Parts: sequence; C-alpha cells; structure tokens
Amino acid sequence: MAIISEFYKNDKFSEHVGIELLEVSAGRAKAKLEIKKHHLNSVNIVHGAAIFALADLVFAVASNSHENISVAINANISFIKAVNSGILIAEGEEVSINPKLANYSIHIKDEKNDLVAVFQGMVYRKKEKYGSKDIKN
Amino acid sequence: MAIISEFYKNDKFSEHVGIELLEVSAGRAKAKLEIKKHHLNSVNIVHGAAIFALADLVFAVASNSHENISVAINANISFIKAVNSGILIAEGEEVSINPKLANYSIHIKDEKNDLVAVFQGMVYRKKEKYGSKDIKN
Amino acid sequence: MAIISEFYKNDKFSEHVGIELLEVSAGRAKAKLEIKKHHLNSVNIVHGAAIFALADLVFAVASNSHENISVAINANISFIKAVNSGILIAEGEEVSINPKLANYSIHIKDEKNDLVAVFQGMVYRKKEKYGSKDIKN
Amino acid sequence: MAIISEFYKNDKFSEHVGIELLEVSAGRAKAKLEIKKHHLNSVNIVHGAAIFALADLVFAVASNSHENISVAINANISFIKAVNSGILIAEGEEVSINPKLANYSIHIKDEKNDLVAVFQGMVYRKKEKYGSKDIKN
Repeated sequence: MAIISEFYKNDKFSEHVGIELLEVSAGRAKAKLEIKKHHLNSVNIVHGAAIFALADLVFAVASNSHENISVAINANISFIKAVNSGILIAEGEEVSINPKLANYSIHIKDEKNDLVAVFQGMVYRKKEKYGSKDIKN
Repeated sequence: MAIISEFYKNDKFSEHVGIELLEVSAGRAKAKLEIKKHHLNSVNIVHGAAIFALADLVFAVASNSHENISVAINANISFIKAVNSGILIAEGEEVSINPKLANYSIHIKDEKNDLVAVFQGMVYRKKEKYGSKDIKN
Repeated sequence: MAIISEFYKNDKFSEHVGIELLEVSAGRAKAKLEIKKHHLNSVNIVHGAAIFALADLVFAVASNSHENISVAINANISFIKAVNSGILIAEGEEVSINPKLANYSIHIKDEKNDLVAVFQGMVYRKKEKYGSKDIKN
Repeated sequence: MAIISEFYKNDKFSEHVGIELLEVSAGRAKAKLEIKKHHLNSVNIVHGAAIFALADLVFAVASNSHENISVAINANISFIKAVNSGILIAEGEEVSINPKLANYSIHIKDEKNDLVAVFQGMVYRKKEKYGSKDIKN
C-alpha cells in the first residue's frame, strides 16, 4: 500500500478540506473528518459537499488500492442525518469489480455511530497502472 | 433575493473551497470555480469532490430561493470530462417542486463549454421559512 | 404481516412480470424472478427493467412493512453482471428511517450467488396508515 | 435506423410490458405507454417499475442508435407525480458520449404534460458493433 500512501499525500483537495485517511486494504478504506467551522453551511450544519468529500476520498483510495488507475464516473449520495460538531467517519468497501468497472459502497457515521449519509460510487478502470510514468508528471 | 445573498454569505464551506455565486433567481442559480492547486487530486485533475461542491452550491441556492428551507436528501453526479485548469461554471434549474419535495438538474462546464459533469439533486422542503427565528441561531 | 401479504397480492405489475415474494419482516424483504423469454432484451440477456422490477418489489414491500404508506421518490441501480437464464434473487434491508424518509439497499444475485445489480431506494413516508379507508379504494 | 427497428422488435420485455417506440434518431428516442390495469401497483397508481421500463427503452434505443453496442451500467430515477390512467410519454437525449461511456437524460410526462419522473442513465460502449455476428445469435 506504499502507492496508496503516496496517492493520498498528493490529494490536495482532501488535504484542503481536512480529511484524514485512517486505513487502506485491497478494495477497502476508512477516513475521518473532524468537523470545524469551515465545514458548515449557512444553517450551521455540516455541508453536504464536505460529507461528499469525505466519502469521495474513501471511494478514491479503495478503488485505487489495486494496480490500475481508477477514475470516478458516477456517485450517488443520500443524506440521512444532520450533524454540526464532532467527528465523522467514512468506511467503504468494494461491491463488485471487473476489468473495466468497479462499484463501491461507503457509509458515513457520526460519533454516536448514527448513519449520516450513504454513498455509492462507480469507477472506470484504466489500463494504465500505478508506477508507470504516465501518472508521475 | 436578499435572503439568498445572506444564505450564500454564511456558507462557510463554499467560501473555503473558493466558489463564487454569480446569479440567482426563483428556482435557478449559477456559480463559478476558478481552478487552483488545492482543487486538484493526486493525478492533478480537478477533484470530483470539488466539482460536487460547485454543483452543490447551485443546488442549495436554487432550492432555497423560495420561502421554505430546503435540505438536500439525495444527489447523483456523473463525471464526464477531466479538467486541470481554468474556470468551471455550474448552472442549475428546478425540474419539479411540490410542497414537500423538489428536484434540480445542474450542468457543470469548462471554459470550452464542454460538459464536465451532470448533477441531479432532490431536497426535502421544511415547513420553516427563512426569516423565522428557527434558523437564526 | 397480513397487510403486506395483501399489499403484495394487489401488485398487478409485479404479477405481470412474474415476481414472487419469498419473505418479509420489518424493514426487510426477499423476492425471486425465474427468468423466462419475456424477461430478455434484444441481445438476449435479462432486461435491466426486469431486474429493476424485481428489486423494486423488495423495495416496496420492505418500505411498506411498517404502518405508514411509503412511496418511492428515488432509486439508483448499478448493473454489474449480465445473465440470461436461471433464477434471480433480490434481498433488501432498511438503511435508515425517520418519520418522513427512509432508505433501502437491495442486492440482486443470480444462482451462482454472483452480484447482478445493486439498488438503492428512498421513500417518502406518508401520514396515512394501512388499514385506513384511504387506500382501500 | 433499420438496425434500431430490429433492436426494438427483439426487445421481448418491452413488448411484454406494452411499450411502444415512437421515434428514434442519433442519440435520441421517444416512447409511449398506454396505462392498463397490469401497470398498476397495490395502491392503484402506475408502478415505479413500469415507469422505469418505459424510460429504459428510450435509454436503450437512444444509446444503441450509434454503431457500437451499449450496455446500461447505471440508472437513477426520481419519481415526481403519481398517475393512474391515460398515456405516458418518455423522451430522452444524449448528454455526453466518448468512446467508452455515454450519458442520457430522459423525461417521463403524462397527458397533461406534467413531469412524472426524471431518469439519468449511463452506458458502457462495447467495441462490438451492430451487424457483426456477435449479437446475431
């Protein structure tokens, strides 16, 4: 998983948002967001796009935990519970994988272990593999 | 639209990401993201979650352009074209509205007017209205 | 679950398609489709809409296993594996529920226990309850 | 569009449901469902899966109006208005297309021209083309 660790380090948007990757294994990942003021929306609850960003890192890391480069083509998120402070944890796993496409399911929970959102994502798996020069630019 | 302008000003996450609201009218909105380094992912293209955040502001503003407070319950995004610089514009409109639920369709385009992503969102419309004390806390 | 059994018996479209309900409990359901010629599409694999119909019965039954009438407001389905004969089984469970909205996750598998599709659905929960005159017409 | 007409004729599920194709052109299609008893659900409104089937034919025909065989990989449908009689019309168009993937947007309306549902679908485009022996079996 050395590649993934590199992959995550270079994810400037996730860093900007303040997302922390906790765990990675083949087809799985887990990440954390400590809620701060800049994650809130105009009614002072955590912004849907901040929750999406947390789930999206898990999605990206889980789908890129194999050799091939995976790019997101679709994501569907349902928002279940509003939160305004504390910590959010997103945990995701591979639902299916074939040479071209793979699907992931990610659950986002709050400190009480209540479900905050559910996220389903699909990636297109490129032929290019990590470690090739193509993505080192 | 004085309420919306207030609504947008208080959206701390959109400000943190660097999204600028351009236009609002009943059921419609338009916003802009000037791509900077912190919007990129680990393969140096604009992060899916940054594109989502841009679309999500349009979704939030368009759905909250009426009297009632609207909260996002579902969003579905398909990513079409990878971009790494320039400006992104998201434009959205109301597809349907009833007293409880409303649907929105948002298109995100790059400087060449190419479609970068399409976003569909559904909100639940609360009974609370803007300007009431409920949301001033 | 007498109500549900009644509910299912009156579902004329599911009957027309040939779907059989196998199990129901609070927030959960399981159904079966024996693939016949009229379920195929023009390239002789099971039609996506037939798979959707199978998942949708599970969704409808699981979401209507409580007292309140639930109506589908959104469904998202990802198609994973093509099949052309045998039996399909859909099994679903409640992911979240509050007084107004509930979410369901349904997996559709073939005889080899391979995942054929994944389905996520959201319902709006009405105030009307089963057994009231409203739905007896 | 001779190929499409053949394609549609062989779609046994659409025929079983009672869907009629009205128009096809490159990336676009239009179809009709005359609501009958077997399209209703247990509360006597048109079944969500029947509406999906109508939209899905438009999706299949529009996405297969080009040379390559397209297979559905994701569909997202939002249900807006309940109907119980009359005619439904679904009309769809291509939102994006590249050599591997394409996206479609389909609107389903009733006789009053009211929106009944909106459907977004994504296909994977195979290398195989129509007219080749591969799909003639």
